[in-house]
Amino acid sequence: MGPVHLNDTKEATVARLIGMLREAHGRGAKWVTFPELALTTFFPRYIYETPQEYDRFFEEGLPSPAMLPLFETAKALGVGFYLGFAEKVTEGGETHRYNTCVLVGPDGTLLGKYRKVHLPGTKDPLHKANFEHLEKRYFEVGDLGFNTFKSPIGRIGMCICNDRRWPETFRVMALQGAEIFMLGYNTPTLNIHHPEPAHLRALHHRLSIESAAYQNGAWVLAAAKCGAEDGFAMIGGSAIVAPTGETVAYAVSEEDEVITHACDMELGEYIRRSVFDFARHRRIEHYGLITSQTGVEIAE
Amino acid sequence: MGPVHLNDTKEATVARLIGMLREAHGRGAKWVTFPELALTTFFPRYIYETPQEYDRFFEEGLPSPAMLPLFETAKALGVGFYLGFAEKVTEGGETHRYNTCVLVGPDGTLLGKYRKVHLPGTKDPLHKANFEHLEKRYFEVGDLGFNTFKSPIGRIGMCICNDRRWPETFRVMALQGAEIFMLGYNTPTLNIHHPEPAHLRALHHRLSIESAAYQNGAWVLAAAKCGAEDGFAMIGGSAIVAPTGETVAYAVSEEDEVITHACDMELGEYIRRSVFDFARHRRIEHYGLITSQTGVEIAE
Repeated sequence: MGPVHLNDTKEATVARLIGMLREAHGRGAKWVTFPELALTTFFPRYIYETPQEYDRFFEEGLPSPAMLPLFETAKALGVGFYLGFAEKVTEGGETHRYNTCVLVGPDGTLLGKYRKVHLPGTKDPLHKANFEHLEKRYFEVGDLGFNTFKSPIGRIGMCICNDRRWPETFRVMALQGAEIFMLGYNTPTLNIHHPEPAHLRALHHRLSIESAAYQNGAWVLAAAKCGAEDGFAMIGGSAIVAPTGETVAYAVSEEDEVITHACDMELGEYIRRSVFDFARHRRIEHYGLITSQTGVEIAE
Repeated sequence: MGPVHLNDTKEATVARLIGMLREAHGRGAKWVTFPELALTTFFPRYIYETPQEYDRFFEEGLPSPAMLPLFETAKALGVGFYLGFAEKVTEGGETHRYNTCVLVGPDGTLLGKYRKVHLPGTKDPLHKANFEHLEKRYFEVGDLGFNTFKSPIGRIGMCICNDRRWPETFRVMALQGAEIFMLGYNTPTLNIHHPEPAHLRALHHRLSIESAAYQNGAWVLAAAKCGAEDGFAMIGGSAIVAPTGETVAYAVSEEDEVITHACDMELGEYIRRSVFDFARHRRIEHYGLITSQTGVEIAE
């Protein structure tokens, strides 16, 4: 998906999503993966002080009024989808905000929801560049964990953006039988934490999703926003990765673009029953630190 | 390292290792990573019935008599090294056999030992190709776990061959402060478990070590045997991978070949304090299945 600017209306943005959904359906697609925060610009790059300033980026209700036309069109066409959005929810009298995605079946059934666990960036501005990465300021850490959801095309696991850099994300879902991972992301071309060569941004994206696919014998469908939102550039590089770790479809434009692939859902099976037959080969007795220890601890 | 044939003597093979050690030292190398089972052919491809038949591939004592000239030369040159070998050890009256590697400091000090945890292949022959992969037949699962060892060049973590495909391997060592991962391997060009396109063998090797480097902000030094041992071909592709996930040195021949790189030991630091600052970003409360569950379990 190309850029969404601050002044773009949600109505116009959702119309673009619907246009891409129709194009995918025209090519025979049964499922569509949309980006993270697909209804608005990537607003965590800006500094806001109060909910009054940033609540306009959030959705309430599922579908929210803005999403409704997309939900209706997808159901009419019989296409399932993954959609990322900023979620505002009031539970037990408390208001929470999450970086969320939802999985909707081809018949309009809500199959699952995920709230982003690995929030990157900071809570307070760094003032190191002409933009920030304030996800920890606007969102709480997701409380739903990593799950998988049965669907007509196979068992689907969902995550969002920075989650894809962590092998833990995919392994937890693979242990629950995931055959397809879907994820949306928004990745700036500039690393504001370190003066890093620009080409590494795309390399790290591809290394993360290709290794995740191979090491779990599952498909990865990864959808980005690309181009520059109000001058702030993102890497794009939406991709479909086979369970062999091979990227079989790759978006190359800086604007709205649909990539499709006829995914052989049996391709990953040989990987899951040979080199990555978890039951036969995993040695959890030697993995203890992964769940018992959060940070690095060095014994002298 | 080029092929080691069944009829090659250990004396001749160790002389080749010493030759490569001298070449590396001549280029200024302070540390050398040798392959898995570097003193013999990759014997788990053959079917043997009794220890009398296969014990000739194993080493007893550290250094074993066969290794001694290598240990002496390395100490004389002041070069540290990693060496893979088949280990036979009698402990408490019981004989054990492991696929082992050892880390020796530039002053000859034994810094650490590792016994392979993720043994691939089978215990019984598959009879699917003109060779087998019988590591589970000749070796016990390693009992030492994944550790890191302090050295003059940084904190080193060790693993062997199939371990490199498992992100758990590297994460457990990174959580103990690993700055360099060393590993030896022997990977046949043919996947005997599935008729897989040949190019995937090298792709999966590179995906595994490049993602491990990036996702832990550490160097990877990976050394293979290459060429064909008595007609059985291996992929080679020994590599040095930077903490950015970029392969900076790569072996391309089918024979003994030394690759070197002046590794900037501070390069990974920015990755370990930003995107992969484990203490700040890991969410172990959502990783539970990784250590509580070995195989796939699907909830309906």
